[in-house]
Amino acid sequence: MTTSYTPLSPTPRSTPRRRDRTRTDRRELYRLLDDAIVGHLAVCIDGAPLVLPTIFGRNGDSVYIHGSSAARSLREGSAPGAAVCFTVTHLDGVVFARAAAHHSMNFRSAVIHGHARAVTGREQKLAALETIVEHVTPGLWTHSRPPTKKELAQTQVLELDTSEASVRVRQGPPADDLADVEADDYWAGVVPMRPVFGPAEPSPDLRRHRAAPAYINSWSQNKSRVIC
Amino acid sequence: MTTSYTPLSPTPRSTPRRRDRTRTDRRELYRLLDDAIVGHLAVCIDGAPLVLPTIFGRNGDSVYIHGSSAARSLREGSAPGAAVCFTVTHLDGVVFARAAAHHSMNFRSAVIHGHARAVTGREQKLAALETIVEHVTPGLWTHSRPPTKKELAQTQVLELDTSEASVRVRQGPPADDLADVEADDYWAGVVPMRPVFGPAEPSPDLRRHRAAPAYINSWSQNKSRVIC
Repeated sequence: MTTSYTPLSPTPRSTPRRRDRTRTDRRELYRLLDDAIVGHLAVCIDGAPLVLPTIFGRNGDSVYIHGSSAARSLREGSAPGAAVCFTVTHLDGVVFARAAAHHSMNFRSAVIHGHARAVTGREQKLAALETIVEHVTPGLWTHSRPPTKKELAQTQVLELDTSEASVRVRQGPPADDLADVEADDYWAGVVPMRPVFGPAEPSPDLRRHRAAPAYINSWSQNKSRVIC
Repeated sequence: MTTSYTPLSPTPRSTPRRRDRTRTDRRELYRLLDDAIVGHLAVCIDGAPLVLPTIFGRNGDSVYIHGSSAARSLREGSAPGAAVCFTVTHLDGVVFARAAAHHSMNFRSAVIHGHARAVTGREQKLAALETIVEHVTPGLWTHSRPPTKKELAQTQVLELDTSEASVRVRQGPPADDLADVEADDYWAGVVPMRPVFGPAEPSPDLRRHRAAPAYINSWSQNKSRVIC
């Protein structure tokens, strides 16, 4: 049995200008989101944009974002009719070209457009928070004290569907003009970059010595997981 | 002789809600910007936000952003009266708390609000592009073929002043409730993260074998430079 995925980029604004950098397979969007911890949420407030970093989670076609009940970005972002944009970016390398105009970055980024919905109701909020916490580190939700009623009330949760989204990818060596390649005046290439995790640092207020749990160590030591 | 810096956060929207995570020293903004390669530029188009990653440079109080002349985000962002928001985020670690509500990230982020100005004129554009290229890697501008007249015409450059900006920083161990600390049911601590650079990968179309230049190797091997 095969699952069919609705394509990305159903609208002009979710259709990147550069076709060579555009991906249309929805599974690439999911992979890109699942490999990241943090994205940037943008809202318009009184006609001016505001963009802030935030952790998030994904479940199926939905992205979940949470924050304090006092956070204006989330309140405005989930107001009826308000549009949001949520962007996730991985940086993979600096591209050094011969020509200044062709220096670039290797990257993968997803841009999601839409209207966010405030998640309400205890069970729905808990499920969304579990999605976010498990997205950051699988296993973390069951290794934490669950939110109290008061903590839940102090938390806003937004759901954003990913139906209107685009994925841009640039990888590989510089793309210089042939004349610059032939002139051979400058070095050209890529310096790859990726985020790495260090050893777990126990909190100084732990009541007794204990090692970081296996689910955290195995996650942070998995260098193939690319997070930015 | 001491230089005086105008403080950050002169307006309500550039005053973060959480005082404990707020920095007000303008030099922290400059350091945070100078340590990054990429930021996220947000504009409002027809009432909906659009946020995209972009490289940038800083010179004094100004941030410079560039892109294709066809890029709508830059065209809309520099239209008279149009407001923009530019955010730069460094991720420093994942904070594992005892309580799900206290999991967090260690991060440093800068948010700049304002009105961008299109940079026009050959000399002004070249100076801004030099700022951007040198911001990515010091020495790179003089090791590249300068832009042609046509390449300059195909490039938009925006200048954004940093007078209205905020800096948020969270560092250190989790901040759990005392009851959760005493209960001692879960491990708590931080897994630090940082971006690292790999060895330079020469472009396959180099006309002869040559090592990456010293200015690139010394830059990428400088592990203390934190980039995300």
